[in-house]
Amino acid sequence: MKEINNIVLIGAGNVATSLSMALHQAGKKIIQVISRHTNTARELAEKVDASFSTSIEEIKTTADIIICAVSDHALKEITENLKIKDTLIVHTSGSVALDIFENKYTDYGVFYPLQTFTKSTPITLNNVPVCIEANNQKTLKILRELGHLISNNVADINSDERKYLHLAAVFACNYTNFMYAIAEDLLKDHGLDMKILHPLIEETASKAIKYRPSEVQTGPAKRNDINTISRHLEILSNQRDYQEIYKVLSDKIRNKYKPNEF
Amino acid sequence: MKEINNIVLIGAGNVATSLSMALHQAGKKIIQVISRHTNTARELAEKVDASFSTSIEEIKTTADIIICAVSDHALKEITENLKIKDTLIVHTSGSVALDIFENKYTDYGVFYPLQTFTKSTPITLNNVPVCIEANNQKTLKILRELGHLISNNVADINSDERKYLHLAAVFACNYTNFMYAIAEDLLKDHGLDMKILHPLIEETASKAIKYRPSEVQTGPAKRNDINTISRHLEILSNQRDYQEIYKVLSDKIRNKYKPNEF
Repeated sequence: MKEINNIVLIGAGNVATSLSMALHQAGKKIIQVISRHTNTARELAEKVDASFSTSIEEIKTTADIIICAVSDHALKEITENLKIKDTLIVHTSGSVALDIFENKYTDYGVFYPLQTFTKSTPITLNNVPVCIEANNQKTLKILRELGHLISNNVADINSDERKYLHLAAVFACNYTNFMYAIAEDLLKDHGLDMKILHPLIEETASKAIKYRPSEVQTGPAKRNDINTISRHLEILSNQRDYQEIYKVLSDKIRNKYKPNEF
Repeated sequence: MKEINNIVLIGAGNVATSLSMALHQAGKKIIQVISRHTNTARELAEKVDASFSTSIEEIKTTADIIICAVSDHALKEITENLKIKDTLIVHTSGSVALDIFENKYTDYGVFYPLQTFTKSTPITLNNVPVCIEANNQKTLKILRELGHLISNNVADINSDERKYLHLAAVFACNYTNFMYAIAEDLLKDHGLDMKILHPLIEETASKAIKYRPSEVQTGPAKRNDINTISRHLEILSNQRDYQEIYKVLSDKIRNKYKPNEF
């Protein structure tokens, strides 16, 4: 089996940065970073001792693997324009099926790190699930080894499963963070420091990990406390967006947990 | 200043259990647990070496403080029926103002532990913010000392502030947990284990504590990725409740973060 030594990264955003830094630290050689934006390409290339380019036409043909860590839209463009048939190519997207590469490349796969990345927050990938999929066993084995270099949590996830996983992650991460942001905003408006909610945020996450979230739901909507719900909706009468969110979520929780539990 | 030695707990639910156990462990004497439900009253009383009763008419008059850890509805009833004027009385509710005690008692206050309690999950109160308020300085000082016995995080929060704090906590805790529960449900439907989301849940909470949540928002709605949003809404077409939640939240996030940031 061909060993992976030389890696080309297409993309220089949050996922590209985290992945290439982790692979670089694990001893792999990032030979090139390609990004349309000169500055971000150069910035990441410097971090991982790579050269950089702003055009996929200049891609280095000595690559053992091409990792496309770009937006779904850009990924489509790449598959239409990148004509290197015999180099292993993977994407890192939760929401794009494996077959985007079909009939275009010989060996291809998906290398999807299930985490929330922001450039300002470098995280170790040790425990991050790396979800892999490939069009043949040989490629799957290569991706599994590459995954284990940066994480102890490598999982075989097919395109259909990944679709639901990505959707679930939107709820568990993106929408959860939005709930935090609303709380932050409500406190700020009344001179209160978000710090006072930190123990609650920690405990809520801990409980969700220790138990099944559906079994540890609490709050006014869970106990069908309509007086508190009405007061909260009234407090939010000047913040219609938040009021609408509160209404929808309290309604759905009440639906889910009725008959009333006091 | 009168020292607090003997405590009567009205209520035997999650908050009553956590508070009385913490105070018991801190060396205070819980002399009585009062709850309408014989079984829960007895169960908690046994845990904290207290006697128990199912009627507030049997309340022990040797109490130095009466802690009402009951539902908002039950609290109203208690204030209408409990005629012990000269014993310090507090409630533990995030959503009830101090003035519920006005003209009924001499010394009164609020002792609100800002945390999510479930009986099955005993938690230490060490870092839990205990939000206190009282109708006079003497009582405030007593509550502050009592708070410091069980937590290193005691905060003066008035009724107006507490109202917003409680509302913010509904978003940061109850609604966040509901997001986890939806994720759990989506994964279960497709044979995937919730464990795969645990690192993501942990990191999302960590980031919210390290940074301002509004500054670390990620996801399809944040980047106005309408293709992914449309696909997700389609996936959810058989789960109308979740689809509606997804739609409302993605709309609000897009509103908040426009113009588009790519």
